[in-house]
Parts: sequence; C-alpha cells; structure tokens
Amino acid sequence: MTRIMVINPNTTEAMTEVIGRCAQAAVGAGTVVEAATPAMGPASIESHYDEALAVPGLLAEIARGEVEGAQGYVIACFGDPGLDAARELATGPVVGIAEAAMRTATYLGRGFSVVTTLGRTAGRARDLAEHYGVGRACLAVRACEIPVLELESPGATAAITEECRRAVVEDGADAVVLGCAGMAELCAKISAEIGVPVVDGVAAAARTVESLVALGLSTGSRGEFARPPAKPYTGLLSGFQIR
Amino acid sequence: MTRIMVINPNTTEAMTEVIGRCAQAAVGAGTVVEAATPAMGPASIESHYDEALAVPGLLAEIARGEVEGAQGYVIACFGDPGLDAARELATGPVVGIAEAAMRTATYLGRGFSVVTTLGRTAGRARDLAEHYGVGRACLAVRACEIPVLELESPGATAAITEECRRAVVEDGADAVVLGCAGMAELCAKISAEIGVPVVDGVAAAARTVESLVALGLSTGSRGEFARPPAKPYTGLLSGFQIR
Amino acid sequence: MTRIMVINPNTTEAMTEVIGRCAQAAVGAGTVVEAATPAMGPASIESHYDEALAVPGLLAEIARGEVEGAQGYVIACFGDPGLDAARELATGPVVGIAEAAMRTATYLGRGFSVVTTLGRTAGRARDLAEHYGVGRACLAVRACEIPVLELESPGATAAITEECRRAVVEDGADAVVLGCAGMAELCAKISAEIGVPVVDGVAAAARTVESLVALGLSTGSRGEFARPPAKPYTGLLSGFQIR
Amino acid sequence: MTRIMVINPNTTEAMTEVIGRCAQAAVGAGTVVEAATPAMGPASIESHYDEALAVPGLLAEIARGEVEGAQGYVIACFGDPGLDAARELATGPVVGIAEAAMRTATYLGRGFSVVTTLGRTAGRARDLAEHYGVGRACLAVRACEIPVLELESPGATAAITEECRRAVVEDGADAVVLGCAGMAELCAKISAEIGVPVVDGVAAAARTVESLVALGLSTGSRGEFARPPAKPYTGLLSGFQIR
Amino acid sequence: MTRIMVINPNTTEAMTEVIGRCAQAAVGAGTVVEAATPAMGPASIESHYDEALAVPGLLAEIARGEVEGAQGYVIACFGDPGLDAARELATGPVVGIAEAAMRTATYLGRGFSVVTTLGRTAGRARDLAEHYGVGRACLAVRACEIPVLELESPGATAAITEECRRAVVEDGADAVVLGCAGMAELCAKISAEIGVPVVDGVAAAARTVESLVALGLSTGSRGEFARPPAKPYTGLLSGFQIR
Amino acid sequence: MTRIMVINPNTTEAMTEVIGRCAQAAVGAGTVVEAATPAMGPASIESHYDEALAVPGLLAEIARGEVEGAQGYVIACFGDPGLDAARELATGPVVGIAEAAMRTATYLGRGFSVVTTLGRTAGRARDLAEHYGVGRACLAVRACEIPVLELESPGATAAITEECRRAVVEDGADAVVLGCAGMAELCAKISAEIGVPVVDGVAAAARTVESLVALGLSTGSRGEFARPPAKPYTGLLSGFQIR
Repeated sequence: MTRIMVINPNTTEAMTEVIGRCAQAAVGAGTVVEAATPAMGPASIESHYDEALAVPGLLAEIARGEVEGAQGYVIACFGDPGLDAARELATGPVVGIAEAAMRTATYLGRGFSVVTTLGRTAGRARDLAEHYGVGRACLAVRACEIPVLELESPGATAAITEECRRAVVEDGADAVVLGCAGMAELCAKISAEIGVPVVDGVAAAARTVESLVALGLSTGSRGEFARPPAKPYTGLLSGFQIR
Repeated sequence: MTRIMVINPNTTEAMTEVIGRCAQAAVGAGTVVEAATPAMGPASIESHYDEALAVPGLLAEIARGEVEGAQGYVIACFGDPGLDAARELATGPVVGIAEAAMRTATYLGRGFSVVTTLGRTAGRARDLAEHYGVGRACLAVRACEIPVLELESPGATAAITEECRRAVVEDGADAVVLGCAGMAELCAKISAEIGVPVVDGVAAAARTVESLVALGLSTGSRGEFARPPAKPYTGLLSGFQIR
Repeated sequence: MTRIMVINPNTTEAMTEVIGRCAQAAVGAGTVVEAATPAMGPASIESHYDEALAVPGLLAEIARGEVEGAQGYVIACFGDPGLDAARELATGPVVGIAEAAMRTATYLGRGFSVVTTLGRTAGRARDLAEHYGVGRACLAVRACEIPVLELESPGATAAITEECRRAVVEDGADAVVLGCAGMAELCAKISAEIGVPVVDGVAAAARTVESLVALGLSTGSRGEFARPPAKPYTGLLSGFQIR
Repeated sequence: MTRIMVINPNTTEAMTEVIGRCAQAAVGAGTVVEAATPAMGPASIESHYDEALAVPGLLAEIARGEVEGAQGYVIACFGDPGLDAARELATGPVVGIAEAAMRTATYLGRGFSVVTTLGRTAGRARDLAEHYGVGRACLAVRACEIPVLELESPGATAAITEECRRAVVEDGADAVVLGCAGMAELCAKISAEIGVPVVDGVAAAARTVESLVALGLSTGSRGEFARPPAKPYTGLLSGFQIR
Repeated sequence: MTRIMVINPNTTEAMTEVIGRCAQAAVGAGTVVEAATPAMGPASIESHYDEALAVPGLLAEIARGEVEGAQGYVIACFGDPGLDAARELATGPVVGIAEAAMRTATYLGRGFSVVTTLGRTAGRARDLAEHYGVGRACLAVRACEIPVLELESPGATAAITEECRRAVVEDGADAVVLGCAGMAELCAKISAEIGVPVVDGVAAAARTVESLVALGLSTGSRGEFARPPAKPYTGLLSGFQIR
Repeated sequence: MTRIMVINPNTTEAMTEVIGRCAQAAVGAGTVVEAATPAMGPASIESHYDEALAVPGLLAEIARGEVEGAQGYVIACFGDPGLDAARELATGPVVGIAEAAMRTATYLGRGFSVVTTLGRTAGRARDLAEHYGVGRACLAVRACEIPVLELESPGATAAITEECRRAVVEDGADAVVLGCAGMAELCAKISAEIGVPVVDGVAAAARTVESLVALGLSTGSRGEFARPPAKPYTGLLSGFQIR
C-alpha cells in the first residue's frame, strides 16, 4: 500500500475534492491518495502574491504528512509553489503538477501548448517551462481569461476547449497541457473533442510520485536538498521551526 | 491488464533477459512486460554505427507489437535509437530509457551525472541531454570504459560504483543516472553504497510507459508523428514498407 | 527627498542595522533609507524552506511601506525572495540584491563569480543567474561554508577574502559579487586586497532603486504585475488579503 | 584529381541524377563527383521512419566508397541521415546537405528561412538547426506540402518560389535554404526571381567536402568518431559487420 | 562633485545638446555632465558601417576625458559602439545606452520591446540583447522607419508613440525601451500616453555611471580589460597609439 | 578566373605575406588571391582597442577592392573585425577567419578547442563562438601567451603545439582551431604531430569565399546588409563617405 498526499495549495475545499478524485483515479490499485487543503492561505492562486502566501499552509501539510507517514507528495497548483522547500522537508519525493504535466507532454511529440486561466499567470508558466528545460517544446501559453473559481461556470468548458483547439491549429501542438488543477476533470472530454492528447497535471503528477515511490527514488539529500538547518522562527510563523 | 513491450535493440539474449526482469519488477501488478530481441542487428551498441544499424530490427519488433496488441513500448538502449520513427509507427506511447532516466532524475534534485560504458558514447548522451532539455541539469557524462558485454565481468560493478561516487563528490550530483541498459540490475546496490538516488532507465521507462497507458496518453498523431506515408521500399529492407 | 525602504527578510535586527547602514551610505544626499525587519520569519535564510517562510513577513513590510509612503524597495537577501509578489504589491520599484549585484557586475567586465555563505544556497544563486540572463557571465558560485549569523566571527573575513581571491585566479573573474547581505560591509576592504571590483548587492540595489525613482520608472502594471485580484485569505495569513 | 561520392539516400534513380548533376556543376575542374543510389531503402524520405530505414543502404555506399577510394562524401537528404555513423566509417570527410546549406547561409546575413516539402518534416529541420547551432539564425521552416517525388509536377516550382518569397517578406530572411535535395536545380531560378541568395545544400555540401579534402581535413578519429569496434551482426544486416 | 562625460558618437551637435540635457536632468545634484561630440565620424549612425567609423572619434573623446579627469563615460548611441575598447582605455566605468536601457527595463517586469529608427538597425539591437543576456526579455525590436536626423520632423513623435503602443498591445510588453539617443526627450511624454514605463537609455546610462562611480566600481583591469599593450600605429590613425 | 582579396587588418607587411601565401595555397587553380595591408592601423591586434582601430583601414581596402573588381574578401584576423560593416560595403561575399575556422571545425567532430596568442583575447573568441552558434562545440579557448609579432620566435611553435596537444588530451577536442592568422603556416606541422585535424582560418576562409563565389552566393542585400545610406562624414575619416 502506497500513501500519497496530494495538496491543493489553495483553501477552496471543493477544488480539493476534484483534485483528490482525479489523482485517485489516475493511480494504481495499491495506492491511496489523501487530498489535503491547507489551514491558511488564499481561496485561489492567480498572482505571484497569492502563490507566495499559499506556501506556508502548503508546507504545514507536508510537515503533517511526514508525521502521518505519507510516502510522496503532489503540489496541485500549476505554479508549483514551494516545490524546492517541500523537497527539503519531505523524506519521499515531491512533484509539482506543472513539471509533471510539461515533462509528460514531452513524451507525446515535439511541442505542446499550455492552456491556462488568467493571462497574468502566463509569465509564471513560461518561467517554469524554461526552468524545467522545456522552453523550446512549450509552443505557447494560452489564457482563456476565466478565474480559477469560475471554471465550472456555464461556457467555461467550451471556452477552454476552443483554446485547446487553437493550440493544435495555430501552434501546431502535438499535445495540450491544462494549466490549472481546477481543469483536471475536463481532460478526457477535451482530448476526445480535439483529437490530440491532453495532459492534466494532477493525474500526471500522481502517477509520477507513485512511480518514484515504487522505484525507491526520492530527492537527493546530500547537498542543496538536505533537511534545513534548525533555527529560531519569529512571529505568526514561529511554529514552522525545523527541529 | 496492460501489455508493454520492452525492446533490447541489440541481439544479445542474455541482456534482453536482464532488461525484461528489471522492467517487470518495476511495473505494477496489472502490467505484463514482454522483453524482445530483434532478429537482426549488432550484438551490442557502442558507436553511432551500431546504433544506426540496430534501428531496422527494433522497428520490426514495434511492427510485430502492433500486430500482437502491445499497448506501449520501451526502447532499452541509452542512445534511444529509432525513437522518433517508432513513435510514428506505434499506436501506443514509446519511451526511450535515456529520456526516461534523465527526466526522472530531474525530479530528484538540481543536477545529475550519467555514468556510462565507453567514453566514445558520451557524445551521444550529451546530445540527448540537450535534445531533451536537461543539458544544464546534466552535470557530467562519465565513462568507466567497460564494454557493454563485459559489464558482468569481475571488477565491473566496483568500477561503476566508484564512478558514481565521483559523480557525487566531484560533480555535486543530487542523483546518478546509469547510462546503459546492461547496468539495470546494479541500481539498488549502488544507491545503497553511495547514498544518493540512482536511476536505471529501464525501470524508469517501463513505469513511464505504464503511466502513459493508464492516463490514456499516446504520441500526438496529427502532424509530425502521423503514420508515415506508404511508399515502395527496395532491397533487403523491402519488407519494411508501410501499408 | 526620496524615501526607500530596505527590507532585511530575516528577523535578525543586528543584520538589519548593517544593511541599513550600507544602503544609506550608498545613496545620494537627498535619499532617506528606512531599514526594516519583518515581524515574523526565520532568524537567517539558508535554505529554500527559510526563504519561503521569510516571504509573508517581507510582504507585510511592503504593505506597511505602501501606507507610509515608501517610494521604492530593496529586498536584502541574496535569494531575492518574494520579488515578483512584491512587485505586484508596490507602487514604486522593487529590486532584489542578487539581481542588482549581478547586473551591476556585468558592467564591470565579461565575467564575475559569486562568493556566498553555505554551499547549499549555491543552487538558488545559479537559478537566479539563469533567470536574470547572466548565466554565462556568472563564472562560478563559491561557498565559504560560514553560516549567515557567523559572518562576523573571527576568521570569517579572511576566509571570504580568500575565496574572492580564488575567483580571480581560478575563474578569471573580472569582478566578484558578494552573495549575502551580511557581507555588505566587507566590500571595500576585500576589493582593496584583491585588486578587482567587488560588488555588494545592498549598495547596488539601493542605488538602483534610487535611480529608478529619479527616472520616474516603476514596475509595469498593465499585465502580469497588476495589483493582485482581491479574494478571501484564510487562517494565520488572513490579514494578507488584498483590498 | 579529387573523388567525391554524393549519396542520394533514397532509391529513386532520377533524383540521384539531378543530385549528381548539381554537385558536379558546383565543384572545381579537378574534382569528379560520383552520384550513388543505395541498393535498399525507401523511394523517398518523408518521415522519421523513412529516414531510419534509409541509413543501412547509405552506409553500404560509404563502405563501397572506402574500398573504391572516395576521398569525401555528401549525404544528399535534408535530414542528414546517418551522418555520425558515416563519419565513424569514412576515412575522408562526410558532410550532410542540411548542415552545409544552413552553415553556408549564415555567411550571407543574419537570418535565413528553410523552404521544404512536407510540413511533417519541419520538426527534423528544426532539430538539425538547433543541433548545428543555427537555431537563432533559422527564422522559419516553411513547407509547400509537395511530396518529394512530385517536385517536378506542374505548379511545383511556382509554389516553392512563392514560399521563398514569403520567407523574405514575412520572415525578413536575408537568404533562403532549399530544404530538399530534389529542389537542387531550382536554386538559380528562384534566386533570380526573389532577389535574395538561395542556397542549395547539394551544391554547398559538394563544395564543402571538396574544400575539406583540399585542406587535408577529415573527421577527428581519436575519440567519439574512431572506427567502430568490431563485433557480430545478426540477420539481414549481418553483412554490415566492421572488420 | 562627480564628472561624467556623455559622448554622442555621431558628429551632429544638435543631437549632442539633446543628449547632454537629458543626461544632466537625470543625474543627482552633485554630478556634472559634459556632453561631447567627436571631431570625426558620421553625421548619424544607421548602419554597421557608420558604427564602425564612429568608433575612432569616440575613443579620442575618451582619451581626452582621461586627461581632463572624467570619472565615468556614457556612450550615447543605441548600438553601444566601441564599448569594449572604451573600457580598456578608461580608468572609470563606461556604460552604453543600449545595455543600460535594456538592463534597466528588466527591473520593470518580465518583458520589454525596443522601438527604434530604421529597420536595418534592428539586427544590431537583437545582437546586443543576446549579448547582454536579455534575449528572452526582449519581446520585439520595432522600427518606425524614421531616419535619426528626422526624429524631430512633424509626425515623428506620433509615429514613435504608435509603435510603443503596439509594443504593449501586440507584444504584451511591461515596458518599452527607446532605441535611439535622439528619442531621449520623448520619454516622459510617451510613457504618459501609453501608460507603461518607457526607458530612455541616455538617462538610464547616466544614472548607472553615476552610481558606479559612487560605489567605487569600475571595469576590472586584471585581464581582458587591462590597458592595451603599446605598439606602433600607422597612417591617419597614428595618433591613437597607446603610451 | 576568380579574384579574392585577403585583407590582413594589421599593418605588418611580413604577416600579410604569410597570410597571402597560405590563402593562395588553399584555393583552386583558377583563383587569384590578392593579399592586402591597410594604410593605417595598429601593427598587430591584441585588444579590443586595436581591433576597433583596425577597422577603418580594413574598410578602405574593401572599398578599393570594389573599385578594382575583387569578387570576394577574407578578413584575416581572428577577431573578425569589421565583418558586418564590410558585408554592407562589398558586392561579393565577405568571410572572417574566425567564423570560417570555427564552422569548418564543426564538420570534423563534436568539439574543438581554439589555441590563441594572448589570454586577453580569449573573451573575444568566446563571444564570436557564441555569436556564430558554436558555443557548445567550442570546448575551450587556450592561450599560449605569445604576442602576435613574436609567433616566429624560437620556442613559439613548440609552445603552440603543446597547447594543441592539451586541447586533445584535456578538453577531448576532435579538432583544434588556430586562433591567429599569424599561425597559418604551422597548421600541417602541428596536425601531423598531434594526430588530430588542425584548422587554419586563413585557408578555411579563402576556400569558403572561393566556394561562395563559385556558387553565385553573396550577402543578402535587401535588409540589414543593404548598402549604407549616404551621409556626411567629418574630420580624418571624411573620405569614408558612401556615395
């Protein structure tokens, strides 16, 4: 039995439920997914500011997972917030949904496009693509200008599907990456409509963590990603001290 | 039940057996691995020449797999020979062990080194690292100068382990990638000795293909990777005609 | 009169004092520097974890600065934590000491090396160099393995100076960048000893912000760096809500 | 007297004739071009699959050339198939028409565009441009969607010329590279019509090989490109064994 | 009192006056700007040829500045002509307006576009962007096709403003860089109209040099940028001999 | 009969003679090389300053060549000074010896090293390698610290040969590029001693220009490299006005 914790870095429970469902559907029979919602942070992540403030709550969940025996973690926001910090903290592997989605897409052809929510988040997606070494494979980051918490409003699916279609026709994408955890359940439907593979990062990351655990692989901990040195923390965040 | 074909692109059966064993050990309970040896080609792959001539036999195995219902394929040579051609041919996903190993290693820290057999193959590994977008993460390609078919000779394991140790100390690698399918069974042992994660591409690629099949993902087939146009083939290779 | 806020993202007051002194010494007569220490966060920043948890306190200082009329901000930690988020929040320009130091060094020759505290922070410095486009100019990131809060211990200056000297001799650096705000006061002394320009990011960033204010330049706010959309924040961080 | 072998990697004799004529016209008086057609392989190369299966026949021609005293070789297909393997095998220099055309174009201005046959081959051209270091200079790869064996059909020349014209107007290309050996004879005509230099890879590669021979230069053979180690080959390709 | 020499590399006095005025307006109270016009060279710089021939006159001004006690230098042409040579010659720092403008723009957001005079100079701007490491941040180089000496003609400002507006709307630029010293005085006006920060290189470079002098920083002189070795110079340029 | 002008950008006649001899030896029977020495400029080029001041004299030779019917030009200094300006001026192709040598070396294997004169010129060679897209292929730039005009002193050849040998052993270079026109005559001797191909840029560039002329190719002249616009030139350089 493998135990994976999938953390939704925002505080919207309904979204955590979708994410948990998609992750559990993606993994094998012997794997249990726990979907977690942080006790503090923003209701959705649509700016660098939101992302920065989502991290403490996310790290608290990782710390809880360590105590409770989680064997691996998924960070289920397309900005991969707090990924390096989480890797220092966790014993098992940690995977972000943007890195998993983008790397998975590279197995499916030469180029992919990302379809995301608000245009203001495209810069972060571009940054991550460069950071993960897929800058050339990432043909475009397209926004449908629908806020994260309105992804289930009428018309949203049609708008997202239309943007995915444009990725194929205008960018020549071999595959499309959905750029928000909140789009996870649309994956199969859109793929069927547009006729190219569509990658949901939640499912991709859950499978990746599951595989890393199965292979006995986790973050190397002899250098940069060793456990952080213990030291005093002050104020509201004083509980975050490493022991 | 998922059926994956793992193809050893050289013609040495003993190596196919090792590869098959490692791949089967890596995947989940519902997955069956068929390890295949081509009917033509070189006994081992240690040059661009060997690699080029391994491809027809490899593609013949893919064609056979298509007929027999394979759902995904692993190309089990660290040069990832014939990968793009195989993707045109196969209905399911195709993954090379170099790309799987290198991409898997990027989840384990900032940098990895590759430890391979002969120094003359290091250029190909470097090329692939650049091509897959992990050129910066790939800190070094180290050769132990042991030919592929002598990896089981006395002293070989010690020499490989020593080179892996240097990758950690001298390159500052967070993880080590084994640069030959013939090293697959050494993975756990070396990792235990040197204290950093060691990635075997055979296991990594088998898990990756299994995951892609589970997620319903395969190569995008509307552009570059569409089935090749039918046309006459002449001479020895005339049987390779696409219909 | 120009008012610049220089924020030390850790909670060690003694370090804030050094930083404030160096920043004030660097700017022109008409500029007043306010050095700020966050009310929450780690005593020093030596890991991705520390850095992530320093950000909320840092952003609270930016928010306070906005209310009190600060015209520009320096983030005085070599990891440039929270920089993008701060730019969304602030009306005036925000500059990190790593970006200011590295870009300033590019005016001084072809290549520079960074001399930093602990080796485990070198990866972040490398990341930033790539992100800022100075990856090729950055010849090396060298660590003297002295923790941030021991930079004033006996022998520390000598060890740092020695590493700077090696940057010149072994890397062929035209200039050296000091990779920690806590080294700010050593700048002139080391430069005199080794005979090449040495850049302190605190001074460089303070001058850069002062110049941006003088030129009437601030972060473009029509796209990615527009003020974050208002939304509910939960838990400990609920006070961070944008209005 | 310099003897150069120009190998058409497909099995269409009519195309070999055009290629041979263009190569012979390009070289100096003291150089004899032998145009060769492989005894096995595809009638044209329009996919990764075709390209992979063209290589054995091509390498057989190189082996024959070695016996018969060829001093240098051109691989006359724009995918440069088998180039690295051929360099291991040949004593003299080996040049692909894509590398020769692209590098030649870099002497003619800042940027060039490639005009090729089918869109599905554009990815390979892009790959090669990156691999040869001309990714930035290569402004676009444009396809006219005419199959290789229909390049002499009515309307083909007009369509290719039109695409070349767009390269100048829309891409701002200083020069155009023809992306198929089958276009070799159109070069002068198109250049005259559009008023910018047009590079045919067959001519460019023939001149390049001739120059390398004249300068006494050939592939370095002390490392990666040393003669491949001898070993058993099995099956249809058993004749390809290195002795 | 800091003395900065701002050199207009062309011989048009009226342009030198504009440049001097903008530079003086940008620096602090304690800094005196001397604007200089070379005694030889082209009336404007609109080609590689003009740029190459502007350099001797520019270097003569630097040599004069050294004798007269200038503490730093600005090269006020957007091609940054002669920058490396000037750095060898000068004791104090030397900054080009293209590097200052582009690096300054990187503090203002993710991406900027350059708006320049003639399209034929765009290649040089692109080259510099790559050389300075801002190739990715530089979203476009846009030309308004107005010659340098006609920038004050009726309609010029409107045309430049329109091109800046397109940079925002079509390129998504966070900031705009004016690509000619002759546009310096338009900066504030255009910024007010289009609502994003607009960077004038003359002001940016003047502030940068002033800051470098204040920080005690100048070109590293122990390697590549040491004073050039003395040697005979022949002909018209014999007066340029280093002593 | 093809007429090529090979310009030595320094004023040392003895070096012009060596260069002319090597160029003439490299080209075919129907090509006449004219070696030219500028009437003004430095005796040798060993700094950015020297290089900048060599350009006017070099361009005057190009202008003379245009009048006298030269069909192509070689710029015979490893910094490729004035190359872009020369391309605007000349009707025929212009090739620098650094670009020709480096690009030629890329046909000979995966990596080459440059062996040059003074270490202070290595930065320029690195810059050019990046600019020409061979930054990855260029494994090292090695200096033997022998001034250009002392390349014929006793011991010089041995020192250069030794550095070439190190390039093979320490850098793993497949080929070596000689980084100074003054080393042209050593090429065959060093290659024979170290057993890898050694590229002299003078010979390589002469062959390249000869080939471009034979192929009817010259610099594209519809954009950036069109003839420079006519305008007044002042002072010593007033004779350089374009008509």
